[in-house]
Amino acid sequence: MDVGFIGLGRMGRGMAASLVRGGHTVRVWNRSPEAAKAVAGAHPVATAAEAFAGDAAITMLADDAALRSVVVEGGLLDSGTRPGMHLGMSTISVALSQELAAIHARAGVPYVAAPVFGRPDVADKGALNIVAAGEDAAIGRAAPLFEAMGSKTWRFGPEPQRANAVKLAGNFMLIAAIEAMGEACAFAEGHGVPGADLLDLLTNTLFASPVYKGYGASIAANRYEPPGFNLRLGAKDVRLALQAAEAVGCPMPFASVLRDGLIEAMAHGDADKDLAALARVSARRSGRA
Amino acid sequence: MDVGFIGLGRMGRGMAASLVRGGHTVRVWNRSPEAAKAVAGAHPVATAAEAFAGDAAITMLADDAALRSVVVEGGLLDSGTRPGMHLGMSTISVALSQELAAIHARAGVPYVAAPVFGRPDVADKGALNIVAAGEDAAIGRAAPLFEAMGSKTWRFGPEPQRANAVKLAGNFMLIAAIEAMGEACAFAEGHGVPGADLLDLLTNTLFASPVYKGYGASIAANRYEPPGFNLRLGAKDVRLALQAAEAVGCPMPFASVLRDGLIEAMAHGDADKDLAALARVSARRSGRA
Amino acid sequence: MDVGFIGLGRMGRGMAASLVRGGHTVRVWNRSPEAAKAVAGAHPVATAAEAFAGDAAITMLADDAALRSVVVEGGLLDSGTRPGMHLGMSTISVALSQELAAIHARAGVPYVAAPVFGRPDVADKGALNIVAAGEDAAIGRAAPLFEAMGSKTWRFGPEPQRANAVKLAGNFMLIAAIEAMGEACAFAEGHGVPGADLLDLLTNTLFASPVYKGYGASIAANRYEPPGFNLRLGAKDVRLALQAAEAVGCPMPFASVLRDGLIEAMAHGDADKDLAALARVSARRSGRA
Amino acid sequence: MDVGFIGLGRMGRGMAASLVRGGHTVRVWNRSPEAAKAVAGAHPVATAAEAFAGDAAITMLADDAALRSVVVEGGLLDSGTRPGMHLGMSTISVALSQELAAIHARAGVPYVAAPVFGRPDVADKGALNIVAAGEDAAIGRAAPLFEAMGSKTWRFGPEPQRANAVKLAGNFMLIAAIEAMGEACAFAEGHGVPGADLLDLLTNTLFASPVYKGYGASIAANRYEPPGFNLRLGAKDVRLALQAAEAVGCPMPFASVLRDGLIEAMAHGDADKDLAALARVSARRSGRA
Repeated sequence: MDVGFIGLGRMGRGMAASLVRGGHTVRVWNRSPEAAKAVAGAHPVATAAEAFAGDAAITMLADDAALRSVVVEGGLLDSGTRPGMHLGMSTISVALSQELAAIHARAGVPYVAAPVFGRPDVADKGALNIVAAGEDAAIGRAAPLFEAMGSKTWRFGPEPQRANAVKLAGNFMLIAAIEAMGEACAFAEGHGVPGADLLDLLTNTLFASPVYKGYGASIAANRYEPPGFNLRLGAKDVRLALQAAEAVGCPMPFASVLRDGLIEAMAHGDADKDLAALARVSARRSGRA
Repeated sequence: MDVGFIGLGRMGRGMAASLVRGGHTVRVWNRSPEAAKAVAGAHPVATAAEAFAGDAAITMLADDAALRSVVVEGGLLDSGTRPGMHLGMSTISVALSQELAAIHARAGVPYVAAPVFGRPDVADKGALNIVAAGEDAAIGRAAPLFEAMGSKTWRFGPEPQRANAVKLAGNFMLIAAIEAMGEACAFAEGHGVPGADLLDLLTNTLFASPVYKGYGASIAANRYEPPGFNLRLGAKDVRLALQAAEAVGCPMPFASVLRDGLIEAMAHGDADKDLAALARVSARRSGRA
Repeated sequence: MDVGFIGLGRMGRGMAASLVRGGHTVRVWNRSPEAAKAVAGAHPVATAAEAFAGDAAITMLADDAALRSVVVEGGLLDSGTRPGMHLGMSTISVALSQELAAIHARAGVPYVAAPVFGRPDVADKGALNIVAAGEDAAIGRAAPLFEAMGSKTWRFGPEPQRANAVKLAGNFMLIAAIEAMGEACAFAEGHGVPGADLLDLLTNTLFASPVYKGYGASIAANRYEPPGFNLRLGAKDVRLALQAAEAVGCPMPFASVLRDGLIEAMAHGDADKDLAALARVSARRSGRA
Repeated sequence: MDVGFIGLGRMGRGMAASLVRGGHTVRVWNRSPEAAKAVAGAHPVATAAEAFAGDAAITMLADDAALRSVVVEGGLLDSGTRPGMHLGMSTISVALSQELAAIHARAGVPYVAAPVFGRPDVADKGALNIVAAGEDAAIGRAAPLFEAMGSKTWRFGPEPQRANAVKLAGNFMLIAAIEAMGEACAFAEGHGVPGADLLDLLTNTLFASPVYKGYGASIAANRYEPPGFNLRLGAKDVRLALQAAEAVGCPMPFASVLRDGLIEAMAHGDADKDLAALARVSARRSGRA
């Protein structure tokens, strides 16, 4: 297929490369153009509008502000050439996704929200879990692209913003797992048990899953650089989850604790460390860091 | 080996049966004697003191009060026949385990704390994860027993109470996982996504581990009876974790949220439902139950 | 002085009337014009621009959106007639106040943020506590107006948004006091002590202050209608406080608890009850409501 | 009246002195006998049993353990001379008070729980607020004693432990007020407003009550020594409140936050500072201490 790809951060690069590897023609655009050159086999284009064309355009931008600036304020939907569909794969707010759905409907461009689970190394391998919601037909046509980028596509019905809600729910659970490990390690160390020993047991038995093993390894080693997923971005996702929760009348006390802990982590200089550095907050609070 | 087994609740029955199956001679005692008859191949005895003898005695009682009543107030350590070692496998407080270590040291009976992870069906299969701490030599001698009851023994050094701290840390993390799923489901349902669909995705990808799959299935089905692990017992474990945390100066905000949620669950009649019913609290708070 | 007053809600009406009573000439404007007629002695005008003129213009609007719509999007600062100063007395976000300060500086109109403490009946009496920040000279010139509306003006230096931060801090403490009373009453009632008896003691001794007496009386009587201060507005203020806290790296666990409680209250139909209805959440959680 | 007074800590000394000043005959006993000599006009006795006699015996001990040790394990109720009634004025658990009520009933000694509100300087002046529950007749006979020690007696019916529940509820609210001030100050300082300025406004207006003024002054001055009420004792009272809350199925999220904050304060060396030092936790978490 002929695809335009907008946003070549650490995730986007791997996803675009996976599309090239899958035999698709990929035009790529990024705000800072050097990144676009880094995707071998892709065709850098000079403007976002040139990428927003073809069988499908994919956006993978950092946050609401970036997406709004490029797509809405950039007037992409008003341009002459328009893609056969728009796959919005960024992690953004439920509210913005809903707004985009309306805008695309008016413009007559099918909009599929398709955020992903997986760190950059998983994106490189084309093994992401893709959470898709939007028009059935569009998701069907996007299947070859999703297959190139992901190991599995999970469908959540016709309303695009539901996929974004699912993504935020998943990130909330992920950060909650880190907090739980952080508190458990501070507790264990208070009782003379090294956190690494505790996590060795738990992440190989009851909690033998990717999230616990991956972040648990960082906590066990007390090593948070280089970051796989910046703590600051995790804080953003908790904020988006809390806003979306409030919009539907859902209290989330765990998310509130995460919010406070992440703010504390950032206030102590860990904003650009790996998200697992949230565990340092528990250590500090108990006088152990 | 010649073993005495004290405490034949849902977990103890499976563990004693596993010992019988492993070729050991097992004397069993339970406060209400019918339970003792239920373990085929074991030899019911009339008093706890008769069970507290042989190569090793194992206690698997419900809580601090039961263990204290049978062992400390029952004066087992003062009786004539005494076992080669005492394997304390109940989930009890760190403080009581420390107290028992001191009492056993004075009595000259090796004491190994060896709480377990696994639900009753895992105990039946002899596939528990056993968390052992105590004298090296005693743990070594206990190996054939642990092998009969568990799939793996995890060692945490010579101080018995550390094993209890590890057990409480693990149960804390387990209940935190339930709360995280409960909040995530309430959030998702507020956005039109069935909790079951959310959990199908997450417990088969990022959170593909026994705890998430097991409790997640209950939450997805909104089915909390019959209980695998009573919510009331989970509340007890959170209480023990909070006490042990306070003793070592460790704040645990997630555990505090769990405490409040479990109290709320019990105040609404769910004390004897499965622990996964904690998820109903999130549903109720958001006006969805 | 010649004053324009924009925003005649329950608070604004009392404040405008106090200005009339103080001998000032008051032009009044409100989106729905009937409210403007309700202030005896004031002169209704047809547009916000006509009110935004004279020695001083005062805005007392419901929230960020209303203020932004009238002042920023309405282009008031671009109109020909401009006031000698703008006293922004609404409870708004710190961020919007900072933005307004910049806009006014460019337009050459002195901007004083001057939010108030006090319920509508206090506004009627001209006995508000006024929290003012902005240019010294402007605050000095505004003194006769503040004296007409308030019993005391508290000054917080030259940066307008500081006054808004103080207002949000005060409202946070106020709502925290309600939550504390709510939890204490649920606790006491669990032990057979009527909440009204507990509050009679505490609000006449240790906590003998307006906030505790006022909201305590509602809680004691379990009467939340008619509302003096809508719970929904309290929830908005907690949201603004949390946002402003995050902006400066300040965790606020009490505010997080309030956020969750207020969302729960609204999810159970109490959005338009008095803020004191937050206490019903504690009662419900403990199975007593 | 002829009174025995047991427990001459900082509060007890002032209370015993007030009784002497009120014309009562006061026998005093304290574990470390020097303290007993410090009450001018009182008669030191050599044993607790000698003090536990006369028209009334008053106990004012530090905690459950001290009271249990002296009264229950000390066997005071089994001794020959017994007082006309026992006024238990210590801040103790609801559960112990209930147990004492039962023991006294069996022994035929009227038991009145009568904990107090007020710091040591208020005790010195005989101006405490006394919270009394127990047999009507006994409280009536105790009136002259209460009048000597307090400015007002608040009655809470015939079940003694209700007075203890009220005392714990009050202390919970007091510590919640400190936390609210601490968070509000950290928030304000993040926005450039000195905490002292914020508290000057709020504790002289909405929150003009003894608790806010007293603890607010410490926070404003950032001065926590010498302690008026040790933080460690506040942590004990929160623990007692949480236990008593759990016993009646009452979640208390604010109390949970207080628990975590007080543990964090103690983990950072503030256990023996004034309770107001809880505010330092908010400052530290936001990177400002």
